[in-house]
Amino acid sequence: MPRTYHFTKLHGLGNDYLYFDAREGGPWPDWSAFARAISDRHFGVGADGIIVIEPSTTAEVRMRIFNADGSESEMCGNGLRALAKWLYDRGWAGTRQLIETGAGLLEPEIVETEGGKATRIRVNMGPPRFRRRDIGMLGDPDAEALDEAVTVDGRRFSLTCASMGNPHAMIFGPMMDEATLAHYGSRIETDPLFPRRVNVHSVEVLDPGHIRMRHWERGAGLTLACGTGVAATLAAAHYTGRTGPRVEVEVPGGILEAEWENPPTGPIYLTGPAVEVFSGTYEWPDDV
Amino acid sequence: MPRTYHFTKLHGLGNDYLYFDAREGGPWPDWSAFARAISDRHFGVGADGIIVIEPSTTAEVRMRIFNADGSESEMCGNGLRALAKWLYDRGWAGTRQLIETGAGLLEPEIVETEGGKATRIRVNMGPPRFRRRDIGMLGDPDAEALDEAVTVDGRRFSLTCASMGNPHAMIFGPMMDEATLAHYGSRIETDPLFPRRVNVHSVEVLDPGHIRMRHWERGAGLTLACGTGVAATLAAAHYTGRTGPRVEVEVPGGILEAEWENPPTGPIYLTGPAVEVFSGTYEWPDDV
Repeated sequence: MPRTYHFTKLHGLGNDYLYFDAREGGPWPDWSAFARAISDRHFGVGADGIIVIEPSTTAEVRMRIFNADGSESEMCGNGLRALAKWLYDRGWAGTRQLIETGAGLLEPEIVETEGGKATRIRVNMGPPRFRRRDIGMLGDPDAEALDEAVTVDGRRFSLTCASMGNPHAMIFGPMMDEATLAHYGSRIETDPLFPRRVNVHSVEVLDPGHIRMRHWERGAGLTLACGTGVAATLAAAHYTGRTGPRVEVEVPGGILEAEWENPPTGPIYLTGPAVEVFSGTYEWPDDV
Repeated sequence: MPRTYHFTKLHGLGNDYLYFDAREGGPWPDWSAFARAISDRHFGVGADGIIVIEPSTTAEVRMRIFNADGSESEMCGNGLRALAKWLYDRGWAGTRQLIETGAGLLEPEIVETEGGKATRIRVNMGPPRFRRRDIGMLGDPDAEALDEAVTVDGRRFSLTCASMGNPHAMIFGPMMDEATLAHYGSRIETDPLFPRRVNVHSVEVLDPGHIRMRHWERGAGLTLACGTGVAATLAAAHYTGRTGPRVEVEVPGGILEAEWENPPTGPIYLTGPAVEVFSGTYEWPDDV
């Protein structure tokens, strides 16, 4: 017999997940197979993935993220902001929260509300790292890669690389259009220089407090918003003297505020919106 | 104050719509603006569009289709099959139905059920037309375009054209891959030969009863299933002696059966599946 599952869709800058409250009840499905089916945008409900809210002994809840391809992720800044909103709006948590994730205990904070609902959320993304060993990049493992010349498909790029737990390569300069970033981004992603592959960002510094950027995400392609990419970009931009430690960042899905506390070793904070889109019910055979 | 709208998503071969029961109640929103917002796959619920079910004085219901861009369509075979299932599964209509559409009164028929739910639906798509005046194609308006040589971007194609109310150009031969069809399909779509533009299909005849095909839809690009394109393809294939009057057609989203009754002037019937995916509620400000 099929079982009915209730969910709510939320997005942070267009990065959308279906949220399932699995704190009580069950039995629960094979979340990986379930995520693949329900995330399909034509044959299923459609989303970048699902977020499963489980009970936690050390925090308010435990957040698990399953991508549309069924793989499990440790953390997602956009998804965490939306989870904090979900908890706050329903009265399950206050403005300062503690969430257990695959990347450790994280502390999202509701910084703006409207009519009792959270509208802006601040997340500590941890400190950036610049050494090649942290980025998974060939060359001296203790050296940094700042404005390093790389030639890809006949075109010369200057890459500045940083890790926020995952690897990022920033190309500072005039903003590339989507087709150009897709062409070169996919080639840089899979360049032998990055054996574990890399996320690639085209970044235009408008002034020391304002950045525009576009993402090419490892395994996902062009995306609307990449939180770790925004954090890595502020890290790279401030570390190389291009901006202050606090910038407003325009990504395709909207705007994030990024702040680096006590650089170069302190954490980066991102503040941005989260929006609840709709609620629904989905049937799924319980013998799968 | 925002109002809450209830909907159900169904798809026919991956062509997905959100269905709204507007037979009673209201007031209803500006459906065009509503469709644009809710159809967005990241910021909204996500669909190819919405189908609004209105009361009718001449049929069971009136079907209105609003695409994701807010434009209104006369008819959609995949959407009509799913509407017939929606009506049958809820006991609003029997196996033989009468639906009012922008393309006139149509008569979908439930031909298979499982556990009281419709699984396969047959739709009369009307008769094909082959004259250039019907297709909106340059040249002698009374002449047909059968295996007509056209050179586009340096490559020679043989096009067979037919209208099912909307214009289609079929390229018979080995199936093109997506990138090739996208490249040449977009150029044929906008070739001066078709002042009103045209839908382009790559069609491989496997045997006189089996066809594989892929669609490039006018204004929509590569799609999972195009009902009028499948009907036009059977018309063109049988009219030029490539197949019998009855074929099984594999499209990217699944399989349709197509049958031409009393060619060359009779109607074409398509039989295929429809699936209910989930139900949900969506809030929308009523002052928009």
